[in-house]
Amino acid sequence: MSEFRKDPIRHRWVIMDDERPLPKDMLNRVELPETIPERDPDCPFCPGNEKLTGKELLRFNFIQKEQPNWDLRVVPNRMPILRVETQMEKAGEGVYDWMSGVGADEIIIESPFHNDLSHHMAVNRVEQVFWSMHDRILDLKKDERLRYTLFFKRFGRQAGDSFLHPHSRMLATPFVPLEVEAELAGAEEFFELKERCVFCDMVRQELKDGSRIIAVNDGFIAMAPYASIRPYEVWIMPRSHQDRFDGSTKSLYFQLAEMCASIHRKLFDLFGAVPFIQTLHDAPLQEMDLPYFHWHIELVPLLTCTTASQADGSLFINPVLPEDAAADLRNAGG
Amino acid sequence: MSEFRKDPIRHRWVIMDDERPLPKDMLNRVELPETIPERDPDCPFCPGNEKLTGKELLRFNFIQKEQPNWDLRVVPNRMPILRVETQMEKAGEGVYDWMSGVGADEIIIESPFHNDLSHHMAVNRVEQVFWSMHDRILDLKKDERLRYTLFFKRFGRQAGDSFLHPHSRMLATPFVPLEVEAELAGAEEFFELKERCVFCDMVRQELKDGSRIIAVNDGFIAMAPYASIRPYEVWIMPRSHQDRFDGSTKSLYFQLAEMCASIHRKLFDLFGAVPFIQTLHDAPLQEMDLPYFHWHIELVPLLTCTTASQADGSLFINPVLPEDAAADLRNAGG
Repeated sequence: MSEFRKDPIRHRWVIMDDERPLPKDMLNRVELPETIPERDPDCPFCPGNEKLTGKELLRFNFIQKEQPNWDLRVVPNRMPILRVETQMEKAGEGVYDWMSGVGADEIIIESPFHNDLSHHMAVNRVEQVFWSMHDRILDLKKDERLRYTLFFKRFGRQAGDSFLHPHSRMLATPFVPLEVEAELAGAEEFFELKERCVFCDMVRQELKDGSRIIAVNDGFIAMAPYASIRPYEVWIMPRSHQDRFDGSTKSLYFQLAEMCASIHRKLFDLFGAVPFIQTLHDAPLQEMDLPYFHWHIELVPLLTCTTASQADGSLFINPVLPEDAAADLRNAGG
Repeated sequence: MSEFRKDPIRHRWVIMDDERPLPKDMLNRVELPETIPERDPDCPFCPGNEKLTGKELLRFNFIQKEQPNWDLRVVPNRMPILRVETQMEKAGEGVYDWMSGVGADEIIIESPFHNDLSHHMAVNRVEQVFWSMHDRILDLKKDERLRYTLFFKRFGRQAGDSFLHPHSRMLATPFVPLEVEAELAGAEEFFELKERCVFCDMVRQELKDGSRIIAVNDGFIAMAPYASIRPYEVWIMPRSHQDRFDGSTKSLYFQLAEMCASIHRKLFDLFGAVPFIQTLHDAPLQEMDLPYFHWHIELVPLLTCTTASQADGSLFINPVLPEDAAADLRNAGG
């Protein structure tokens, strides 16, 4: 029997319908070459091609002692869709609102190794990615026109990105993206009613219940959310209340990296290389000490095609119960 | 230069970035066989296989005088994800909300002809599809547990439906789908401020401006919305205020069919067979005389893959300006 479940933050009803087994042989996969070279001379993100990427915004070289002498680079997107150089202009066009394309469009080149995919990237490299996000947030929030930095990692053609070299993208915008805006509104509403953070309530409830918990460490839980919109969706959440990602400690970034690396290994153990989108849901740039918001990471594997009128965001149908997904991921090697 | 545009109803900012031309040779296409038979003995929607679809909910036979003696049938989905027979139950699970899967899941078999695709379906057949939606709404709104009937037509694997035989699907739900809920909230807010329907304002402004108008007839406009989230997105809107789809007249359904058929021919003329999702955005079932809501049809061709972190609904990037899309569609044969 199918059922409806409601996301307590975004108030989104999801149809859970697990009467049809997930067709394991028909799932989306990322086709990987049999061997991926450590370095690809044609890849603009590989060492030796640094000149192709334009002005470097950030470089880490804490691990890699030999050539190329860098571990991670942040560079502007070569064809940026948003630019900090743009003058901020706003206008009305009758009933519509218009704004010039102010913002930033950056690429985090996560590793010098072309084949350093998420499911075997070393924990200290994953940690550096989070530090680079931290550092970019600190830099970009000085620009008071900007209200948000959306960090996301897409893997695979079905996720809209076919570059193999490990990288994330960041779009900084002069507004809060709709999905985060909806989370902020829902969480604030809950706080006004209960004087508690709804994310903290979820963490407590999930830890007590256990059925949707995938993994736990000192700083974080990884869970299959109660109203997951997609099979095997994973949220990684700090166990203690924390509104801003850039307010984390060294030890938390390490634990986050450990957790994140482990979840990607688990996903690979279960399904092989699948397309995914991993997004950081953070507080808006210029906001401080929000008692109702709690940053987290949402990792959505794109195992199946759209199954309902999901394209216009109206209805979500999930064929895998989060409790089943959590059990599979708990038991997977990671 | 890119720019931001805001949807006045859902308050959604969209990034318009038309600096890269749409790669015309890399667009999503629906692979059609060279000839599609008028009747496919293996198709459960074709005449002769009526027994495969279970209890008929509606049958029209106004056009087709010979065998099979039907023009259109509405049947329950063979593997329904929602059922009217389900007892309504609601429960809280700590911070979460749960509901039993009450609803309906129906298929409109739009034509007895297997090959009657949207881009050449006759206007009187398209009109019958709208009448069948009208009739199903009248029937389903008697069930006071149901709050919405979401009608959508998906075409092509990329839209999540690979059945060729022309059909639409309807999901009736005991809640208003999120996207429509957001439209209702935004439109009500506008009405409280201005005492006008925001959709009526859009129709007036678009008719005056003209640059985003694709076609006009007595009852409807077809336009490329100012803040389209996808290239060549089309909205078909009644020119006069009308909250409920089932409140339309015979003459309006005919004009709607004419408009809809023409837009599909235009899309085919431009791109050939492309995957699409066409959704009716209607008022909630049990609501009457809403001064702020205005039903309309949203037709979203899925020409390109997801290009940003669109999977979690956070940011939309559209590489084709609606004005350019409207000009192309205006000039296309239809």
